[in-house]
Amino acid sequence: MRSRECGAEGIALLPVRRFKKDHVLLVDDPVSIERPLQINISDSLSGYIPRELAITMRTPGDDEALAVGYLFTEGIIQEKADVKEVNQTGTNGVCVILREGVSLDLQSNGRHSYVSSSCGVCGKRAIEQIQGLNPHSKNHPSPLRISPSLLHSLPIRLREAQREFSQTGGLHASALFDQAGQLVELREDVGRHNALDKLIGSQLLSGPFPLQENLLLLSGRISFELVQKASSAGITMIAAIGAPSSLAVELAEKCRITLIGFLKEDRFNLYTGEIQGTLC
Amino acid sequence: MRSRECGAEGIALLPVRRFKKDHVLLVDDPVSIERPLQINISDSLSGYIPRELAITMRTPGDDEALAVGYLFTEGIIQEKADVKEVNQTGTNGVCVILREGVSLDLQSNGRHSYVSSSCGVCGKRAIEQIQGLNPHSKNHPSPLRISPSLLHSLPIRLREAQREFSQTGGLHASALFDQAGQLVELREDVGRHNALDKLIGSQLLSGPFPLQENLLLLSGRISFELVQKASSAGITMIAAIGAPSSLAVELAEKCRITLIGFLKEDRFNLYTGEIQGTLC
Repeated sequence: MRSRECGAEGIALLPVRRFKKDHVLLVDDPVSIERPLQINISDSLSGYIPRELAITMRTPGDDEALAVGYLFTEGIIQEKADVKEVNQTGTNGVCVILREGVSLDLQSNGRHSYVSSSCGVCGKRAIEQIQGLNPHSKNHPSPLRISPSLLHSLPIRLREAQREFSQTGGLHASALFDQAGQLVELREDVGRHNALDKLIGSQLLSGPFPLQENLLLLSGRISFELVQKASSAGITMIAAIGAPSSLAVELAEKCRITLIGFLKEDRFNLYTGEIQGTLC
Repeated sequence: MRSRECGAEGIALLPVRRFKKDHVLLVDDPVSIERPLQINISDSLSGYIPRELAITMRTPGDDEALAVGYLFTEGIIQEKADVKEVNQTGTNGVCVILREGVSLDLQSNGRHSYVSSSCGVCGKRAIEQIQGLNPHSKNHPSPLRISPSLLHSLPIRLREAQREFSQTGGLHASALFDQAGQLVELREDVGRHNALDKLIGSQLLSGPFPLQENLLLLSGRISFELVQKASSAGITMIAAIGAPSSLAVELAEKCRITLIGFLKEDRFNLYTGEIQGTLC
């Protein structure tokens, strides 16, 4: 590819012809980098010989957090102490070494374990199985007190923080905010599930955890899988710029997560739960 | 869930509190339905006993096209004649019966075969492998002659056709247009890869195939996986409302697919290939 490096991580500059009505301009355009990441695990079950767990297409950067977040949200590890070491292997590989006593039977877990190990063909039964997997899913209402006016201010705060997003328009973001509206952490990726795994993995490795003190803000739409990941990390309030799916709403209701969609500067929809300032 | 049926397929109405500045309104809001679909295959290798191939979270509807499109874009089937029968099994399952002589070794293919069977940790090698998988990837420039002004008109035509999209804001669309700008077919889903698999599966089952006479228009962003799927169906021109990733551009360049991003009413970016009316 005729690309060249760019200052920001996760971005390449490509020569592009920009058409605007009837003129064309040859410009260098920032594009989000997408590369496969191979996640290996090493545990006592295999005599610490690394085995391939999953390959995901991701934006390079935060690979160790992504791998640990993935292992956590898939229910393979339960806490930080389950991880003995995380090593980058080349530019597109990460190996997570598990502590003795924690191991993974790939045969029975398979890939995408939470989906494939569930009955899968019935949303309700899948939801019940997932609730069993989540160590931090508390099943009580969100303790967060966040007013509608503070919620309205979050999309702008997210955009300001998304330096990369504004450059390429190609990255999904997951961000944690505290009750006062301060940004706690932001992660981005070409894949929205990766952005959330990076955020959760990073907090598990070096932040306070679980995350019931924070609101999770998503730059796009809310799928079932994103609510599942958030719930596993103890998150009790999710807001998104985009729309939720039906199964995302069902799972949020079951896990007693407050779910907000279509969050804009002047409006939002409340799908489940309560927020401070509810008028009816 | 306190949902009720809605006229349009793939949509549920949920009671939602809509906050707008300082009033709140209780309304029934349309939400895209997301449910798991279990895709089974049945072939001579297993004595026609169905085996589970994959589970995907999708919007119900067009399940048979989705299953066949998935099998095709993953390289498991090569043509319509490889499919003997497709049967819906319950509301969230599909079984594809393969013709004698076509079979699938799940052990070596695994799930997400094109990614997991590639070396995976190097984009370039993955691209070479994928090119080998595509029976219809012609590797010559797009024969389509579509002017910039016709391109500018497509986002509006897509929005008009996306009746469901305008109702929920939650569905991705994949659409085929002919050289004159006429809509050939449109498919929607909560997952953008599913929308494209539905479109390709539907054309494989009942349309002209491969699809080199058509432009593919995507409602969102363009990932590597979407270019791979399009290329496998012989598509030579892709336009998207959103941004491409770096690996999507690389694969398009390698497969000589014309790739257009950020398509709006007054502008677009041309990443690879040529279009009629190029001024520089």
